[in-house]
Amino acid sequence: MLYEISEKTMKLESEGKRIIKLNLGDPDQSTPYEIIEVAFEAMKQGKTKYSFATGEPKLKAELANIHGVSSENVVVTPGSKWAIFSILYLLVKNGENVIIVSPHWTAYELIVKNLGAEARFLRTDVEANWKVDVEKLEELIDQETRILMLCNPNNPTSKVIGDKTLENIVQIANDKKITILSDEVYSDISFVKPKSILDIDDSHILINSFSKTYAMTGWRIGYSIVSRELATKLLRLHQLTLTNVPVFIQQAALKALELRHEIADRMREIYRRRADLTYEILSKTKLRLTKPDAPFYFFPKFENLDSERFAFSLLDKGVSVTPGTAFGPYHEYFRIALTIPDEEIEPALARICEELK
Amino acid sequence: MLYEISEKTMKLESEGKRIIKLNLGDPDQSTPYEIIEVAFEAMKQGKTKYSFATGEPKLKAELANIHGVSSENVVVTPGSKWAIFSILYLLVKNGENVIIVSPHWTAYELIVKNLGAEARFLRTDVEANWKVDVEKLEELIDQETRILMLCNPNNPTSKVIGDKTLENIVQIANDKKITILSDEVYSDISFVKPKSILDIDDSHILINSFSKTYAMTGWRIGYSIVSRELATKLLRLHQLTLTNVPVFIQQAALKALELRHEIADRMREIYRRRADLTYEILSKTKLRLTKPDAPFYFFPKFENLDSERFAFSLLDKGVSVTPGTAFGPYHEYFRIALTIPDEEIEPALARICEELK
Repeated sequence: MLYEISEKTMKLESEGKRIIKLNLGDPDQSTPYEIIEVAFEAMKQGKTKYSFATGEPKLKAELANIHGVSSENVVVTPGSKWAIFSILYLLVKNGENVIIVSPHWTAYELIVKNLGAEARFLRTDVEANWKVDVEKLEELIDQETRILMLCNPNNPTSKVIGDKTLENIVQIANDKKITILSDEVYSDISFVKPKSILDIDDSHILINSFSKTYAMTGWRIGYSIVSRELATKLLRLHQLTLTNVPVFIQQAALKALELRHEIADRMREIYRRRADLTYEILSKTKLRLTKPDAPFYFFPKFENLDSERFAFSLLDKGVSVTPGTAFGPYHEYFRIALTIPDEEIEPALARICEELK
Repeated sequence: MLYEISEKTMKLESEGKRIIKLNLGDPDQSTPYEIIEVAFEAMKQGKTKYSFATGEPKLKAELANIHGVSSENVVVTPGSKWAIFSILYLLVKNGENVIIVSPHWTAYELIVKNLGAEARFLRTDVEANWKVDVEKLEELIDQETRILMLCNPNNPTSKVIGDKTLENIVQIANDKKITILSDEVYSDISFVKPKSILDIDDSHILINSFSKTYAMTGWRIGYSIVSRELATKLLRLHQLTLTNVPVFIQQAALKALELRHEIADRMREIYRRRADLTYEILSKTKLRLTKPDAPFYFFPKFENLDSERFAFSLLDKGVSVTPGTAFGPYHEYFRIALTIPDEEIEPALARICEELK
């Protein structure tokens, strides 16, 4: 449903219709110019050839340094989605299962099912402040469970898992010998700084991306931090599939890392302002919601909502949101992504409130 | 063995060693500046966002126009390798088999095996001028055969399949209801123009790339021409894996198509000159070889050669070639890629001849 809304939105736009897009986690910010310039220089210098399958040594070294691991643990990928797909492709067999904390990014579920594995959901709810119930987690795990998928901060709830809860989750995973795949793509611009999975136990897997922090979604570059053994398997898989992420894009990413504190601080403040405004407006309505810990999303609940009908009807009126059903059985919810210019937020929220009447 | 030699070569280079690289099908030519400039302009215009999963409408329309198909048949991919992997991932199941005309590009075999399918080889030989034996092809096909992989012009032999032979191959594939995947990435700069699979029967699949014709290997952009049904499945797979090829790269590719006759003619002449020189030199040696129909490769045979030992020993002396075993059981062969500056060809060939003594 995430992709149906997205493709329909793009189609309407290509027909000339004006849509306020609250449906996509695609920042309205431009990629900082310094990054673009480095890509251009690299192209001119001939960084347009085949290269190392898991990434350029300098980029890997810098990422290793940031995360306190070795370069051999770093795998540069064309986006975090490929990082997730490729790891699950290698680690999960038909008949095994993956536990996903829900509501969840659509891609997790579709990837697991595409690979012939079972997706099991650990539901969280707005009424419980989206808290992960570790006892329920334990009950979901069986002999065929291979992976626990976390998204921290979470898309779509913008909730950060508390340190104590995260430690309990890791403890259970370790006891049961399952691997955690922790997608932390919103972490660097989070309002509340989450603990990274690697800070608790670096035998688990971190997924990260340049997309959100640096407004580089369309550059398709992310990375994973994995064991050396898995890195070697990913190297071989990259040799069969992608060859490598374009080197000029990797050089641009290296520039992004050089500017990371400056850019992340600036981006965080933009999204914090939007989140504050949105929270102020929506908390006065009948919507049930939590104050976000991180950009960019709100995932409000409206009693008895048919979220799909609502989203398509709203799209016809020029505002695109994603129905809650894109993230699990959340029929009464919808997702707002604050990836539009500040001045469009109030009118867009007004149209949403109008549609909900 | 292709990737082992390649990774070892890059490692030696990163340690400061000077290697003449005849091992990679990666043109020494620069990407034409007009193409780089368009990518830069597109980045500055904000073409750095998520977009359509199977490609930008304008690029698809132009590719459709070139190949005489509909836009809905075109799938833009991050390189032709991904096109092949993704199609086989969708079409071939565990226990089924794929027939590969051999010698063959390493990736075909590795992909098929990675997917749990069987790779069956239809051997061709230098003594028979690399001719595909259609009777042998027919014998190899059984109930579990799904795909016939062709590479036309062939890597590593640089042989073009004759029109009549190609028609016979298509006839057999149609009779037996198997799909041909025709990798034609060397076609646009071929000295002898091969007939495209689509010109004979457009129910089969064409794979192509911007890598070789436009010296864009490291940009990672290629495409496939497939049925609408398969295009829809590939769209869904892209949504789970890659999202899309960066739009600024697709705009650069569109510029490449605009300049295609000019660029292809220029590239073809460069490689023809090198091929003529190399043929002149090598045909005077004890090597057995054929005159290439296309860039960039020679695949000579040397009686009783241990090709792997030869390649590693030659690499220690500063020249990198690929052992024949990378392309099937061709122990007495090695592959030379003429993707180095003209003036390096004679010294490199001299060192090869020296090593063979």
